[in-house]
Amino acid sequence: MQTLTVDLGERSYPIYTGSGLLERSELLLPYIKGRQVAIVTNETIAPLYLEKIKSLLTSKEVTEVILPDGENFKNLDILNRVFDGLLEARHNRTTTLIALGGGVVGDMTGFAAACYQRGVDFIQVPTTLLSQVDSSVGGKTGVNHALGKNMIGAFHQPNCVVADTLTLNTLPDRELSAGLAEVIKYGLIRDAAFYAWIETNLEGLLARDPALLAEAIHRSCECKAAVVAEDEKESGVRAILNLGHTFGHAIETAMGYGEWLHGEAVAAGMVMAADLSARCGWIDAAEVERLKQLLIRANLPVKAPEGMSADQFKSLMQVDKKVIDGRLRLVLMQKVGWAVVTDEVPSGLLQETLEYFTV
Amino acid sequence: MQTLTVDLGERSYPIYTGSGLLERSELLLPYIKGRQVAIVTNETIAPLYLEKIKSLLTSKEVTEVILPDGENFKNLDILNRVFDGLLEARHNRTTTLIALGGGVVGDMTGFAAACYQRGVDFIQVPTTLLSQVDSSVGGKTGVNHALGKNMIGAFHQPNCVVADTLTLNTLPDRELSAGLAEVIKYGLIRDAAFYAWIETNLEGLLARDPALLAEAIHRSCECKAAVVAEDEKESGVRAILNLGHTFGHAIETAMGYGEWLHGEAVAAGMVMAADLSARCGWIDAAEVERLKQLLIRANLPVKAPEGMSADQFKSLMQVDKKVIDGRLRLVLMQKVGWAVVTDEVPSGLLQETLEYFTV
Repeated sequence: MQTLTVDLGERSYPIYTGSGLLERSELLLPYIKGRQVAIVTNETIAPLYLEKIKSLLTSKEVTEVILPDGENFKNLDILNRVFDGLLEARHNRTTTLIALGGGVVGDMTGFAAACYQRGVDFIQVPTTLLSQVDSSVGGKTGVNHALGKNMIGAFHQPNCVVADTLTLNTLPDRELSAGLAEVIKYGLIRDAAFYAWIETNLEGLLARDPALLAEAIHRSCECKAAVVAEDEKESGVRAILNLGHTFGHAIETAMGYGEWLHGEAVAAGMVMAADLSARCGWIDAAEVERLKQLLIRANLPVKAPEGMSADQFKSLMQVDKKVIDGRLRLVLMQKVGWAVVTDEVPSGLLQETLEYFTV
Repeated sequence: MQTLTVDLGERSYPIYTGSGLLERSELLLPYIKGRQVAIVTNETIAPLYLEKIKSLLTSKEVTEVILPDGENFKNLDILNRVFDGLLEARHNRTTTLIALGGGVVGDMTGFAAACYQRGVDFIQVPTTLLSQVDSSVGGKTGVNHALGKNMIGAFHQPNCVVADTLTLNTLPDRELSAGLAEVIKYGLIRDAAFYAWIETNLEGLLARDPALLAEAIHRSCECKAAVVAEDEKESGVRAILNLGHTFGHAIETAMGYGEWLHGEAVAAGMVMAADLSARCGWIDAAEVERLKQLLIRANLPVKAPEGMSADQFKSLMQVDKKVIDGRLRLVLMQKVGWAVVTDEVPSGLLQETLEYFTV
């Protein structure tokens, strides 16, 4: 097992990564203050891991809330089911919510914890690669709105994160690839050596080599924890974690949530961001091609969905959370291993990128 | 005009109270950072004051969101209309929401501001006595759930509060009385001299004497600001602001939101809390009678609604936010002018109070 700490003063918390962690009650119990616990999961994960987690919590009063599976259910309506479950079982302010599942379960459970009785504790138990390397860490929680992704939410840090790599054995191939998109992102934004390591080891990662996956998760979490500790509420550098996401969120919203997986939309979005970085003269066109080849090897998309127009992108990108007083801010690459946030991209170059990818 | 400051470090903010403040743009504009503003109000208040506020904001891009009027609309479904309005007009993270209305508009707008893009600024412009003395101050925001009042929410402090006493001229008598219930509460919990002042001046307050109302609002806000500054997130003393509310919330939930006004339920709840305080031997029975007489003069209820049972109270009170690990905590009176939070009320005495009021 490896332990990382997200350093946020009195809101600091550990991330435990390793194999077989779902057997170990000592990773959960110290982070549960009261006697009530609510496990929030989904229909896919419940049959696989719910009983396992419950067996660690025999000293607690446990309530289960099982949500439908998929990004298209990440909305206020379905969120209300968590509140229904908590109130029917009379959960009070000392309750602890446990998010058992992927990014959707984690985002919704965290947001429910942020809002229930104006804030209760929660724990992340991520079961997908994407949530283990990204969404379970950092305290961003929320739900989608029909007009924009993750538009309703809160910053609410978990008490701890327990990422058991064994759960990845039940993950569909498509979701494994989607998670690798975020792993590749960390290399691109802050760690050129890690990027090269991924290029070397991609086939092993796709074959689910446990040691390679553990290493990829650990290094990704290290990067995320460092960036989050520097800028918890995204007033600055944290935005680089959204490389590819402004384009990607537009794709997800346009296609209907769940049609493209989040990691797939981010993959295509990263190629678009790299393309725009090249048009700005910041990176070589060869680096864009290098990224495309890596994503293709990971079975990820490298262009926008057919049928999306440049105008549709522009309209949806205007509701991005990085827009400030009408000025679109984008995360671009100065080089492999170094991303920056900028609001100085000439609109003509953005237009060129959008047109290139929507022909 | 009088100015009070709620002292919360970097989240400190002013409360302006006085007559004619809705004419004064200098009370709003310094608290609006970006160029986008969304005024959230309801169908009753919009025809009265919306244009007036808009005329102060000609330098801004203003979006209006008009909600239906009433506590029964304070839920997640109606909250989503605020997000609809914000997203349709492409509001970004630098937007400022203005809550123009009573407690329901203030609670919902504040919660929308807490959640929109994980948190934007907001300003309270309360137009009812209840919201001017209580709900607009202190940063408690939220919505109701069918199973419990204010169960979904956040602590989110406004940038400023502008309470124009002229708006009380359009307030229905019943709502004026409901607001007086919270004014009386401040005397009961922390200020015996203010309580006696209210007894002396009640008829003048009911007749809307401007100087008396201004004094009542100012002293109420002084009390609330001091308690909130001491305990922003209600880990201790802040709970005394909920004198009568545990019983009152049970009444509101049992009757259906909006049937009894919040202040009416709090009035009956305060009598029940006083009765229980007397049964505990903390105050004289004569003080309970004194409170009842004052509330009756203010045209407020002093007993539970017909048809509610002791069991119904007990069940609904178990979801109160002051319950900790199954132990009900209540706000009771040690004397007039001094309330405390206690979890040591013998359940037999609580039972006696509930039975006495539900015969």
